[in-house]
Amino acid sequence: MTLLPPPDHAVDDLVTRSLAEDLGRAGDITSNATIPADAHAEARIVARAAGCISGLDIAMKVLHRVDPGIEITKSANDGDIVDAGTVLAIAEGPARSILAAERTALNVLGHLSGIATQVAGVVAQVGDLDVRIADTRKTTPGLRAIEKYAVRCGGGMNHRFGLDDAVMIKDNHIAAVGSITNAVQAARASAGHVVRIEVEVDRLDQLEAAIEAGADIVLLDNMTPAQLQQAVAMAGGRCTLEASGGITPEHVREFAETGVDVISMGWLTHSAPNLDVALDLAPAPH
Amino acid sequence: MTLLPPPDHAVDDLVTRSLAEDLGRAGDITSNATIPADAHAEARIVARAAGCISGLDIAMKVLHRVDPGIEITKSANDGDIVDAGTVLAIAEGPARSILAAERTALNVLGHLSGIATQVAGVVAQVGDLDVRIADTRKTTPGLRAIEKYAVRCGGGMNHRFGLDDAVMIKDNHIAAVGSITNAVQAARASAGHVVRIEVEVDRLDQLEAAIEAGADIVLLDNMTPAQLQQAVAMAGGRCTLEASGGITPEHVREFAETGVDVISMGWLTHSAPNLDVALDLAPAPH
Amino acid sequence: MTLLPPPDHAVDDLVTRSLAEDLGRAGDITSNATIPADAHAEARIVARAAGCISGLDIAMKVLHRVDPGIEITKSANDGDIVDAGTVLAIAEGPARSILAAERTALNVLGHLSGIATQVAGVVAQVGDLDVRIADTRKTTPGLRAIEKYAVRCGGGMNHRFGLDDAVMIKDNHIAAVGSITNAVQAARASAGHVVRIEVEVDRLDQLEAAIEAGADIVLLDNMTPAQLQQAVAMAGGRCTLEASGGITPEHVREFAETGVDVISMGWLTHSAPNLDVALDLAPAPH
Amino acid sequence: MTLLPPPDHAVDDLVTRSLAEDLGRAGDITSNATIPADAHAEARIVARAAGCISGLDIAMKVLHRVDPGIEITKSANDGDIVDAGTVLAIAEGPARSILAAERTALNVLGHLSGIATQVAGVVAQVGDLDVRIADTRKTTPGLRAIEKYAVRCGGGMNHRFGLDDAVMIKDNHIAAVGSITNAVQAARASAGHVVRIEVEVDRLDQLEAAIEAGADIVLLDNMTPAQLQQAVAMAGGRCTLEASGGITPEHVREFAETGVDVISMGWLTHSAPNLDVALDLAPAPH
Amino acid sequence: MTLLPPPDHAVDDLVTRSLAEDLGRAGDITSNATIPADAHAEARIVARAAGCISGLDIAMKVLHRVDPGIEITKSANDGDIVDAGTVLAIAEGPARSILAAERTALNVLGHLSGIATQVAGVVAQVGDLDVRIADTRKTTPGLRAIEKYAVRCGGGMNHRFGLDDAVMIKDNHIAAVGSITNAVQAARASAGHVVRIEVEVDRLDQLEAAIEAGADIVLLDNMTPAQLQQAVAMAGGRCTLEASGGITPEHVREFAETGVDVISMGWLTHSAPNLDVALDLAPAPH
Amino acid sequence: MTLLPPPDHAVDDLVTRSLAEDLGRAGDITSNATIPADAHAEARIVARAAGCISGLDIAMKVLHRVDPGIEITKSANDGDIVDAGTVLAIAEGPARSILAAERTALNVLGHLSGIATQVAGVVAQVGDLDVRIADTRKTTPGLRAIEKYAVRCGGGMNHRFGLDDAVMIKDNHIAAVGSITNAVQAARASAGHVVRIEVEVDRLDQLEAAIEAGADIVLLDNMTPAQLQQAVAMAGGRCTLEASGGITPEHVREFAETGVDVISMGWLTHSAPNLDVALDLAPAPH
Repeated sequence: MTLLPPPDHAVDDLVTRSLAEDLGRAGDITSNATIPADAHAEARIVARAAGCISGLDIAMKVLHRVDPGIEITKSANDGDIVDAGTVLAIAEGPARSILAAERTALNVLGHLSGIATQVAGVVAQVGDLDVRIADTRKTTPGLRAIEKYAVRCGGGMNHRFGLDDAVMIKDNHIAAVGSITNAVQAARASAGHVVRIEVEVDRLDQLEAAIEAGADIVLLDNMTPAQLQQAVAMAGGRCTLEASGGITPEHVREFAETGVDVISMGWLTHSAPNLDVALDLAPAPH
Repeated sequence: MTLLPPPDHAVDDLVTRSLAEDLGRAGDITSNATIPADAHAEARIVARAAGCISGLDIAMKVLHRVDPGIEITKSANDGDIVDAGTVLAIAEGPARSILAAERTALNVLGHLSGIATQVAGVVAQVGDLDVRIADTRKTTPGLRAIEKYAVRCGGGMNHRFGLDDAVMIKDNHIAAVGSITNAVQAARASAGHVVRIEVEVDRLDQLEAAIEAGADIVLLDNMTPAQLQQAVAMAGGRCTLEASGGITPEHVREFAETGVDVISMGWLTHSAPNLDVALDLAPAPH
Repeated sequence: MTLLPPPDHAVDDLVTRSLAEDLGRAGDITSNATIPADAHAEARIVARAAGCISGLDIAMKVLHRVDPGIEITKSANDGDIVDAGTVLAIAEGPARSILAAERTALNVLGHLSGIATQVAGVVAQVGDLDVRIADTRKTTPGLRAIEKYAVRCGGGMNHRFGLDDAVMIKDNHIAAVGSITNAVQAARASAGHVVRIEVEVDRLDQLEAAIEAGADIVLLDNMTPAQLQQAVAMAGGRCTLEASGGITPEHVREFAETGVDVISMGWLTHSAPNLDVALDLAPAPH
Repeated sequence: MTLLPPPDHAVDDLVTRSLAEDLGRAGDITSNATIPADAHAEARIVARAAGCISGLDIAMKVLHRVDPGIEITKSANDGDIVDAGTVLAIAEGPARSILAAERTALNVLGHLSGIATQVAGVVAQVGDLDVRIADTRKTTPGLRAIEKYAVRCGGGMNHRFGLDDAVMIKDNHIAAVGSITNAVQAARASAGHVVRIEVEVDRLDQLEAAIEAGADIVLLDNMTPAQLQQAVAMAGGRCTLEASGGITPEHVREFAETGVDVISMGWLTHSAPNLDVALDLAPAPH
Repeated sequence: MTLLPPPDHAVDDLVTRSLAEDLGRAGDITSNATIPADAHAEARIVARAAGCISGLDIAMKVLHRVDPGIEITKSANDGDIVDAGTVLAIAEGPARSILAAERTALNVLGHLSGIATQVAGVVAQVGDLDVRIADTRKTTPGLRAIEKYAVRCGGGMNHRFGLDDAVMIKDNHIAAVGSITNAVQAARASAGHVVRIEVEVDRLDQLEAAIEAGADIVLLDNMTPAQLQQAVAMAGGRCTLEASGGITPEHVREFAETGVDVISMGWLTHSAPNLDVALDLAPAPH
Repeated sequence: MTLLPPPDHAVDDLVTRSLAEDLGRAGDITSNATIPADAHAEARIVARAAGCISGLDIAMKVLHRVDPGIEITKSANDGDIVDAGTVLAIAEGPARSILAAERTALNVLGHLSGIATQVAGVVAQVGDLDVRIADTRKTTPGLRAIEKYAVRCGGGMNHRFGLDDAVMIKDNHIAAVGSITNAVQAARASAGHVVRIEVEVDRLDQLEAAIEAGADIVLLDNMTPAQLQQAVAMAGGRCTLEASGGITPEHVREFAETGVDVISMGWLTHSAPNLDVALDLAPAPH
């Protein structure tokens, strides 16, 4: 499976905003006051904990944005699963520039690798099953496109990127038009032919209606593994079945074993802890 | 202690960006296709888990940005510590507008309350001691000003906002100018009189030099509680002492009991899990 | 069928940019030099030619952005098909403000109504057939979300909004992985379960492979009506069939009669002429 | 006559916005999923129809923005009039990058060349006469500076870029101050000495007043060729005479033969159809 | 003469940027920490020195941007010439909001009034002569549209707003095409009919060539009053004559008495000192 | 003392905005119409008056932004004090590009050097005394970070960059909480440990309270030299003493001789006249 990269404009925007917030109105006043402009240094970007890497290329762009003269040698790639202590990249260049970029680069790398690591852990747990792990729209505000890239790095699959790229019919929508059938028809009439329609149900007795209404995907919300198993039997492969609702890495396996096609987990993007990454600096002869 | 609010421009920018990323290029196609334009609804914003609230005002701004006609009645405030099930606010207005804003509003509220909740937990743990809990620059890229507000909501104190608003002298800076004294002098010569100077030391034998060099604050990096206790004795109140380095909520108490003035924890902003918040929607008579 | 509105942020951005480019660095120097600040006027927004209206709400936002004090009474709605001479809205307020907004408001309204009018004409031509008319990504640079709204106003359906919201496999993709089957599998492995996969074929002998590979939609590129008819027979309803390639309003009927499900036409957004709209101003008593 | 290029910042902004709208939140998911990262390709940018080229440099900037490593060999220039089938440029580089940029580059090139082609057609029609063809402010929202560049490519002349760079006195302005003389004086008093003053008249009996008031240019609005001829005689070269009002390429010749100095046509920017351009891709050995 | 206001978008942009730079990442930490959220205050905006007011409306927008609830009563207008001690406006509202906006509002008002005051002083000096005082493009970076508004407030006239809205032929341009005549012809061929052409000459023997070439305006650069007088005689009213080059308020009178039509002075925008304005705050009963 | 450079993002933003405002919607129409695209030129950036240089690097970035192909040889650096006539840099490249960038580059350089020159003059006046010269927040709207850099170039020290990076307690804050002690305590409780607290007093009898409350700095507002001398004696080195309030270069010496630690002067940024700089252009053989 090819890893789909994030779009450049989203990356550029993130680099711009995150550097600006760290450099503020006067820049790195400590390094600029103490370190000579011509001092060079070599920095090793290191994973202090084992995990799945995501955001290494973006972190390198942070360094290059601060100083295009920094030379970078990568020894890992986004999507790699590495041991604690692995050197991910070596950057050599002006010491001031490396120090100015350090925290911003590490924040990006640690945050995205934190997500990727949790996703990879879940994907590994269910690797023997025919099920895919997906994210949700429960992402950190302003970082959706990038966090969804981290999910891909971990081997996960992306659900909707927003309210606009797929239809997701929930109870309020159904209530407004009277039935699942009406809701699916209304959506189909308004949305284009390239748009998938998903229906969220929280009771098994809604499943048949959703399938018959022509739902491409049915989201089984907050159901127990037993209910999910029943749903899989009822559907008989007529649509994609997705389980969701408060599923965490600890319990994902029992949900995965039910036979559903997809498990989507908000936890992966809204609660994954940071991966510990560091930048070790040494003076460079250069 | 007064809670310092975040600056409006940072909030506005966050609201703009996070709504744009969720509404995308076609808006909420599901609600717009199924729910009549004149349908009204009442939404209860609820904390599903106990925690400390942060971002409620911002979440309300998300709703108002989508539709200034939504009427909101708040029943909690940022900084409040609430039980699971607490209704934080009630919003009434066009159902389409509330649904379009829902996920973005909840993402902001859940993320910031997640941080505030962890901060408040740590602050409560050490409430009987004369120590303050601070954040770091290890924040989510692009969200620093807002996440630091969440830290304040939880009762924490803000460390530097960037590389520009305080001097932080580390080993590389000391190495470049030859001694702690030289580094402090260089910083003092370049930085203004309103800028504090902090020196990071990782060995006790550097502490005296830092104090004598005139450091306002000494950061004791990665020291054991025993070492910190010794540092407190050595400093004798001549400067502010800050402990830092991988401290998590589980072990913070033993660090706090050493007598240091400040404990700074990157964990609070880079690894705090989301607080579970929800928006329960019911049709409104209006 | 409900008309899906454009997202507010896209509209706001368009209003901001288009007003800025017209008002420039000194504003409306003619009106400001000659018309008293307290002069009021009444403006009738009129369709000088018959057509389908799109952008009336956006045009009204242009007026309100220049002056929130302008009072507007709409007598038509986006999506309406109107005769030449129809008054679409009456705006009353400060004469200077109305004149400053005039050209920008009309440019938006004329451009979008131009597209909607052509779409509505094509939709009317094929109204008795079971076929839908779709747009393409051949839109005016920077205006895609808004022009696709104009297509919806005319009764058309939206195809992809970008390279990211649906898979479209073309000859180069197929060549790169060796076969249609490989291409569909590669796409399915990388893209999420909410993403539809469309395969473009330009020869009938590729159709079966595309269907068997699991394509949701097959785009029949540059085929004659006779070939399309054959394709419809071959597919037997196993997938959605879309005809495309240089189809203009003049010849669309013969393509529509072939039984394909969708006809997509770049012409609708890249070559539709403006609809003639005007703003007739009269002094207001107020 | 030298072709005045568009300002870089306007071009950069257009490239940024149009690429972002096409690449969206996940980029070119089809190409990234199917085409190897190291695959190279050669693309020929071809004019499929005869016309006047505009936007080729901007299209090349689109390619370079996606990937600075794409090598481009141009074989035509903006302003050239070419036959159908002419290769305008050859781009060689990573296949993924070329495909990601393709549609955006072609949309720019086709739109601007569409305008330039119509302008060039009109200019050619009147080439034997002493008259210049000008655009208006009836441009596509947000694209004025660029579309006016397309007009220059076609050999046309630019009228005002906005409400701020020249005075244009119309009936409402005249009514507000009582007379053409008063209006011109008011404008002259407020506007700088580098600003030209144009007066729009729709009756011949207003012409003398406009000239005597000191108008630099008189716009003769919606007049017949016969009336225009009379106006030319009346003015006797004392000011620049401009004919305007619903003039299309079909009838422009008869207006041009009246002896007016300038003919301005909104049609050229608001209703010119796209020029058919394409990008033909072949695998490259590289 | 009507005072032409600055365009709203330029004002909004200035308000946004200047508030953001003052409020930074944590807002007004002093007022928020000490002043209750419900404390009200009354602020008098006062001119501490005599001068010509400019930017009062913009300053009021700064207050309203921080808090739309601030009530403002203006007692002066932009363009007014006031004595020291004049109250320009009274603002009443939340004390925190007024204090947060204070410095930004005063910086705008003091800067623009500083310019307007110098312009008004020069205009008054030459009020009995038939000459107009103009600005140049020597403005503070990023503030041109607003500073040129300040010039208008002081009774001055605006020269070019940029390189794009009028032609200004200087020695390098003349050298490139061989003669003034060639330069004017080249410019006339490329620029539109609404664009004025100015030729800069630094020797009297160039004047006749410039006039004969059809220059609308001739800029007499760095000439002595005696030379200017001679130029006026030579030109005999055939074109507008503008004197420029290092003219300051001290010596402007002798240049004005030469009979030139316009005197342009970079000094007015690049070296005018601030006008002393203040905000006096008193607690309000409310 | 090392000169702290301005942060890149602030410089880039200034370059972008100032070039856009000068090039407008059509670019340098004069040069583009008259000068061949391949003409080269050599430009000498010259200080026409003696002064302290600031903004030379930014001016060079302006040139490079217009055309990366311009080659620049610097012969001076920011912070240098130069004689009239000094060549600061030589730029060689396309003549059109150099002319397009000229005014913007000079406006930046002249404005910042104007400030630096005044600062350097004041610093030189008091060079034998143990006092530092600081700026204030009285800066030109939108230019604070850059103007504070100019202050550093002149040898001055930066005061607060905004309302957020240091506490400044004034009379209104004191009144709101009842006493200086309360105000300092409230600020200390809310602000972080890296934030300095300054108290402004305008009467000597407030000084002791401020010191005892724990103020890091006391600002002595609008005091006479005699009062300042008394304050120095009273404080006895227990805090930093800063004199402020209407101090100009003419009278700064007598304030400096009082023994205060810092003198802050709004005049330096809001009223410093431009330094006369020019760009002398000659055709280049290249």
